Amino acid sequence: MTVRYDYARLARVGMPEATFCLGKTTSQLRTIVAELAERPDNPVLFTRMTESQYQAVRELAGQSLAYDVESATAVMHGCLPAREGKVAVVTAGTSDIPVAAEACRTLEFLGFAATRIVDVGVAGLWRLLERIDEIAVYDVVIVVAGMDAALASVVGGLTGQPLIAVPTSTGYGAAANGETALRAMLSSCAQGIPVMNIDNGFGAACAANRILLTLNRK
Amino acid sequence: MTVRYDYARLARVGMPEATFCLGKTTSQLRTIVAELAERPDNPVLFTRMTESQYQAVRELAGQSLAYDVESATAVMHGCLPAREGKVAVVTAGTSDIPVAAEACRTLEFLGFAATRIVDVGVAGLWRLLERIDEIAVYDVVIVVAGMDAALASVVGGLTGQPLIAVPTSTGYGAAANGETALRAMLSSCAQGIPVMNIDNGFGAACAANRILLTLNRK
Amino acid sequence: MTVRYDYARLARVGMPEATFCLGKTTSQLRTIVAELAERPDNPVLFTRMTESQYQAVRELAGQSLAYDVESATAVMHGCLPAREGKVAVVTAGTSDIPVAAEACRTLEFLGFAATRIVDVGVAGLWRLLERIDEIAVYDVVIVVAGMDAALASVVGGLTGQPLIAVPTSTGYGAAANGETALRAMLSSCAQGIPVMNIDNGFGAACAANRILLTLNRK
Amino acid sequence: MTVRYDYARLARVGMPEATFCLGKTTSQLRTIVAELAERPDNPVLFTRMTESQYQAVRELAGQSLAYDVESATAVMHGCLPAREGKVAVVTAGTSDIPVAAEACRTLEFLGFAATRIVDVGVAGLWRLLERIDEIAVYDVVIVVAGMDAALASVVGGLTGQPLIAVPTSTGYGAAANGETALRAMLSSCAQGIPVMNIDNGFGAACAANRILLTLNRK
Amino acid sequence: MTVRYDYARLARVGMPEATFCLGKTTSQLRTIVAELAERPDNPVLFTRMTESQYQAVRELAGQSLAYDVESATAVMHGCLPAREGKVAVVTAGTSDIPVAAEACRTLEFLGFAATRIVDVGVAGLWRLLERIDEIAVYDVVIVVAGMDAALASVVGGLTGQPLIAVPTSTGYGAAANGETALRAMLSSCAQGIPVMNIDNGFGAACAANRILLTLNRK
Amino acid sequence: MTVRYDYARLARVGMPEATFCLGKTTSQLRTIVAELAERPDNPVLFTRMTESQYQAVRELAGQSLAYDVESATAVMHGCLPAREGKVAVVTAGTSDIPVAAEACRTLEFLGFAATRIVDVGVAGLWRLLERIDEIAVYDVVIVVAGMDAALASVVGGLTGQPLIAVPTSTGYGAAANGETALRAMLSSCAQGIPVMNIDNGFGAACAANRILLTLNRK
Amino acid sequence: MTVRYDYARLARVGMPEATFCLGKTTSQLRTIVAELAERPDNPVLFTRMTESQYQAVRELAGQSLAYDVESATAVMHGCLPAREGKVAVVTAGTSDIPVAAEACRTLEFLGFAATRIVDVGVAGLWRLLERIDEIAVYDVVIVVAGMDAALASVVGGLTGQPLIAVPTSTGYGAAANGETALRAMLSSCAQGIPVMNIDNGFGAACAANRILLTLNRK
Amino acid sequence: MTVRYDYARLARVGMPEATFCLGKTTSQLRTIVAELAERPDNPVLFTRMTESQYQAVRELAGQSLAYDVESATAVMHGCLPAREGKVAVVTAGTSDIPVAAEACRTLEFLGFAATRIVDVGVAGLWRLLERIDEIAVYDVVIVVAGMDAALASVVGGLTGQPLIAVPTSTGYGAAANGETALRAMLSSCAQGIPVMNIDNGFGAACAANRILLTLNRK
Repeated sequence: MTVRYDYARLARVGMPEATFCLGKTTSQLRTIVAELAERPDNPVLFTRMTESQYQAVRELAGQSLAYDVESATAVMHGCLPAREGKVAVVTAGTSDIPVAAEACRTLEFLGFAATRIVDVGVAGLWRLLERIDEIAVYDVVIVVAGMDAALASVVGGLTGQPLIAVPTSTGYGAAANGETALRAMLSSCAQGIPVMNIDNGFGAACAANRILLTLNRK
Repeated sequence: MTVRYDYARLARVGMPEATFCLGKTTSQLRTIVAELAERPDNPVLFTRMTESQYQAVRELAGQSLAYDVESATAVMHGCLPAREGKVAVVTAGTSDIPVAAEACRTLEFLGFAATRIVDVGVAGLWRLLERIDEIAVYDVVIVVAGMDAALASVVGGLTGQPLIAVPTSTGYGAAANGETALRAMLSSCAQGIPVMNIDNGFGAACAANRILLTLNRK
Repeated sequence: MTVRYDYARLARVGMPEATFCLGKTTSQLRTIVAELAERPDNPVLFTRMTESQYQAVRELAGQSLAYDVESATAVMHGCLPAREGKVAVVTAGTSDIPVAAEACRTLEFLGFAATRIVDVGVAGLWRLLERIDEIAVYDVVIVVAGMDAALASVVGGLTGQPLIAVPTSTGYGAAANGETALRAMLSSCAQGIPVMNIDNGFGAACAANRILLTLNRK
Repeated sequence: MTVRYDYARLARVGMPEATFCLGKTTSQLRTIVAELAERPDNPVLFTRMTESQYQAVRELAGQSLAYDVESATAVMHGCLPAREGKVAVVTAGTSDIPVAAEACRTLEFLGFAATRIVDVGVAGLWRLLERIDEIAVYDVVIVVAGMDAALASVVGGLTGQPLIAVPTSTGYGAAANGETALRAMLSSCAQGIPVMNIDNGFGAACAANRILLTLNRK
Repeated sequence: MTVRYDYARLARVGMPEATFCLGKTTSQLRTIVAELAERPDNPVLFTRMTESQYQAVRELAGQSLAYDVESATAVMHGCLPAREGKVAVVTAGTSDIPVAAEACRTLEFLGFAATRIVDVGVAGLWRLLERIDEIAVYDVVIVVAGMDAALASVVGGLTGQPLIAVPTSTGYGAAANGETALRAMLSSCAQGIPVMNIDNGFGAACAANRILLTLNRK
Repeated sequence: MTVRYDYARLARVGMPEATFCLGKTTSQLRTIVAELAERPDNPVLFTRMTESQYQAVRELAGQSLAYDVESATAVMHGCLPAREGKVAVVTAGTSDIPVAAEACRTLEFLGFAATRIVDVGVAGLWRLLERIDEIAVYDVVIVVAGMDAALASVVGGLTGQPLIAVPTSTGYGAAANGETALRAMLSSCAQGIPVMNIDNGFGAACAANRILLTLNRK
Repeated sequence: MTVRYDYARLARVGMPEATFCLGKTTSQLRTIVAELAERPDNPVLFTRMTESQYQAVRELAGQSLAYDVESATAVMHGCLPAREGKVAVVTAGTSDIPVAAEACRTLEFLGFAATRIVDVGVAGLWRLLERIDEIAVYDVVIVVAGMDAALASVVGGLTGQPLIAVPTSTGYGAAANGETALRAMLSSCAQGIPVMNIDNGFGAACAANRILLTLNRK
Repeated sequence: MTVRYDYARLARVGMPEATFCLGKTTSQLRTIVAELAERPDNPVLFTRMTESQYQAVRELAGQSLAYDVESATAVMHGCLPAREGKVAVVTAGTSDIPVAAEACRTLEFLGFAATRIVDVGVAGLWRLLERIDEIAVYDVVIVVAGMDAALASVVGGLTGQPLIAVPTSTGYGAAANGETALRAMLSSCAQGIPVMNIDNGFGAACAANRILLTLNRK
């Protein structure tokens, strides 16, 4: 097996290709890490990396690989240089935290500041209202919520910033592994809320990257 | 065709059998109305009755049939005697009104007072917060909402009354004819919110009837 | 990680926030238990807690945590004071018992009496008919059934009390992990039966709590 | 277009090929009727024939075609000779009648006696219990029901005859055009209830034909 | 926990209640077996019993329990007395055998002779054509097939006996755990083929029982 | 509106871009036809063109447009030059004919000979067996079938030619507008049968075009 | 009926509430238009307005209502003042144009410049490559595509701007009314592409509004 | 258990029956291998064979069985004689490789040359454009892709060869275990792309076999 990494992606679209580890075999990951190890100038993010996947490649990667268990990500050869732009990552409940963590770590890898604002689900609305003015200060807001995903609509009705909704697979039964949160966000009564795939904190961070780069360019 | 109306239902479960008109042929409806016309002591509600269905049976029924176009219901032989208990029917948007109207008319038929509180969807949260104290006074609250159905969770997190959620088939695409609202309500992050079938304002009123009769009995 | 527990919920909606353990990591649960341990005046219910999750936090919680394996729940700092109101939890088959147990334990935590009436599925209709008069005495009836969920319709056609239907994920193939029971209950030919999410015994108890509090207030 | 009618089917499997009219163009139907008109010895059943389809072919068919609007069927060249065997076609509600009518007319075409027992849905259980002994006398019972389809399970738990369940597309929302009734019947808690496609009264009659022919042969 | 076994079912519908073990806990199964052990006159069938479930109850049951691993069934207190009637259980492929085995063992438990005719899938049509005359001799034919389930239509077009189709969960991807086979059988172009739930060999045997008892009565 | 027709497609992939009319407005179609009318050297196929769409553009197109109602296609500026290669388009039933007609007309437009072999569904297997040797002579076989789509598997098990399966939206209920036929074909027990979208006779012809061009090149 | 228009939304989130006409009755629309007619300072957009809905309200609205049939939108009391920011709305095919038109008209209403770049679907890749440099100049790119929606991934892989994907309901069969395009866009292999509901051109424009307002603020 | 292997399949349709191991028990596989071991003249392919299944049969099979872990296939009694025809197996990403490997190994078993061209997904379009001329040289192209499966449309728009699309189950959330890739490929905007079941590399190779045999015959 040979690797065909898209080294040109950073120049082309403003972010490097990430390595999505879910479903990759240990042998595939080792080949990839071995190749990337030879390019210390090329920072890479690994997402959905389990601890055992990390153990399988850590020796090959050496010092260059920084793993974080909460977000299940690893950064190789350091992060991109810091850029201007700050993002709030707002979550409804504790179970949504791993997805928020993936978004935050991706943003940091891409050079942006990210702040988590957790446990502000609408079942206790005062928790959100208490912090909405704080949220309104960020350049981009990422809302991470599962089950009924009502948080996205409420936040979207209260602020006018760029907002990116990420449904999560929390819940059971009718929550349908995040499918309900996804569809509820897509059907939001608030205006102008685009949606990422279920649990796709990484993608939300990349969408924020597209916006923040444009802001930086102005 | 002969009719086998369940005349004993009122005594048995506290509400008479209703006639659901959707999908019934004119000829079937005429047979039913003709039979019921002979039992003036037996108040009946017709639901999902189109105007043309009404036209097809109005002569047969004579004075005894009162049709309402907004709720698509007809009441035959008057309503049940007034009973104690008042219900708020809260809706997110204008498109949810026909379902709310079906709930209100059923409640009136069953002898209860019903108040509509419309257009308080969470995209403009102030509209709900402005009226939440008023809502908190009712014995039962029916929340009618489509699309993301976030209203049910927000109301459920703000008040402790018996609450019945009715998803509606408003919206398009991912709203999936009310399926998304249904599943979002079933997955609500607020505690203790039971859910009716899509657009089932009638059923919500009957569920309220079960609660209010118990209250009356105390 | 910090916890943002909604301590105001009991005063606001008549029931404290519960901690839903499914999908939470051991580390998340330990943080939550540690915080809650400092508030002995605040009774908390943990639902969907596996035995190994219990083992991971029991030391932290000390005497204050009472675990029950059948319902997969734990009660911390005791139950709420007893309140008036009794609930029948009726099940179709043996496999529905864990969900019924969750409903019963939640009711007890909330201060209400709960009685299980099990194995009265309609395939042997005499079992239900034998006990229907007994069922009719309770303030609220929770019907727990999987597969075709026909029990909800039959009970709903025989009694007029507030009824809450809980579909379960028993069965296989076309039963679709409870989806069929859910949809059958939502489509019930009996009038006024609201429905909870699949396997949501906790939610049914909370819905009963809303009704019983209102009864208590009268 | 030429027709390739399976004339050998009656001899091979005990019932002639039927012509399913749904979705056929007028021109296709006319070709078929013209060919069949030349075979007066070959009785044919047309199912799902709309009135306008009937009008389009009635002249071509002449006296040989007997149309029935309730069941949307037409019989050409008369019925098969009467055979021994009687079937009860039991329905939950009025909206299920067209499907029951299709089953009855098919049975009559195939030479068997069919009796409709309508409006015995379980929301008013006494209606079924009143007639269950009558039902138990038939050789085969076809149960036709929509929405929650609970009738099939209750009948199946009360009698031991060959039973064939037919879900119908009545209802709305979660009833999903009969999909819920179909899945509920497939998941029945009663033992040994095979199921036909949604609204397939014709198929149920053919399945009964297979059983009754075997009985006749004994 | 107490057991509420439906002892009257055999007299009422011609087959005893079976114990479906899937999803039952060891503790539940032990309670059931303990109760049934005291009724040696009451033959019982256990279905979907895993080997470890069997190990957990075998001592309690003693000699009275006969386990069969291929069909995952156990018979307690022997089979019902032999009755007249023979059934062919026809399968498309090797992977369908466990379901066929469940059907066969259930039939034997109910007192009927059952013959397996395996590996006659239509991808090699000669295998079926070679044996179709043999198949045509049985009183009832059960067709067990997964994936495209084409075997049911082909057999149904070749013979006129009572036929019961059982879809299986073999295959992957678009086979959707038997959902495709189920829907294909329900949509069969052959006439009069009723269908059981996915993998429900037990139910097919019970449906055959209903037919064979009627044959025996003639 | 301006048109951006892909004139280079014929040279690039061996077939010209076709105009799919379903869902296009009259005004859109008129713009397209007007542009294409100026390129008489560029043969174009219109698919899914209703009669009223045809009426709306026929004058604009003049003599150059040949419409065929059965296949709902129109050919503008004649067909491509005849090429070597013959295709059998085999259908299960009469309702599948429009899709087969679309395939045949597309093949003729592309310069190939196409033969329809209709009404050979497996419910009357002799009809297929009678003609299988004839079918085996063609370069490519397109199998068009709805409902259970069993025909594809049976043909695929009998011949070794390139075979393309086209599911059709015939049937009702569990047939799910062709979804069941689609999934059954994808799950075929016969080896090497690729599948087109539901009712996509055009696509099947294009897939055959790819094969036949390669044959021509050898 | 009274209207509860959210007049504060423009100040709160930077865009006024729009009136979604799909499913609203004529009587509802007339009430809304009558109220809004009295607030000439409040520009409003109506979306999904059919021509007959427009005819029903045009007199009431008088000069203030500008209807556009292609996008099915109407603007009342003029557009918002022009703001800086330009958006490219890129479509795969002709059938996607109405959705693109809705996006463009909404952008114009909100004060932004919008340019349509149509018919650049990937089946003729040169059409896109020819214009990709032009596309790369815009502040935000909205990609509108149905069926396989491959255009979103290809554009997303070629440029780094903020990109918003809108799936459309074009196509048939497996395209599933836009569900496939929706899911394909959500699963895009290109990084950072958020997605709107099916056919939601309005929402995409509002999402762009959020980004452009932020740009304007810098 | 006895085996009924279709030894005639090679002669009939040009490829031997393969043994699909997924879901087969060790005991079933041992029976099959034992029988096949006695027919050294009959080359057989085992697909979806896990390493532990291989370990369970390797001794029985002896030297005759060659296992390959990447493709999860085993070849018994060698491959078929080499035939003319070469196939390109093109994949979007690393996770698609096992499916591509199954296709390649099946082609080699059937006697054809197969070349893998991996990691040419459209998120980095240059990778595909760089190799498209190389791809255009093969007799048949198999495109293997998951998630949005956009690669199939792009390749299909660039070359005119016989193309077979294989969706894979890579991805998560809205990718739905390959269902989205499947439906996107079926809805491709490129013309004439037939599709196999999800992850069915074996089937794609068999479809290529049908084409290549026809080419060989010319």
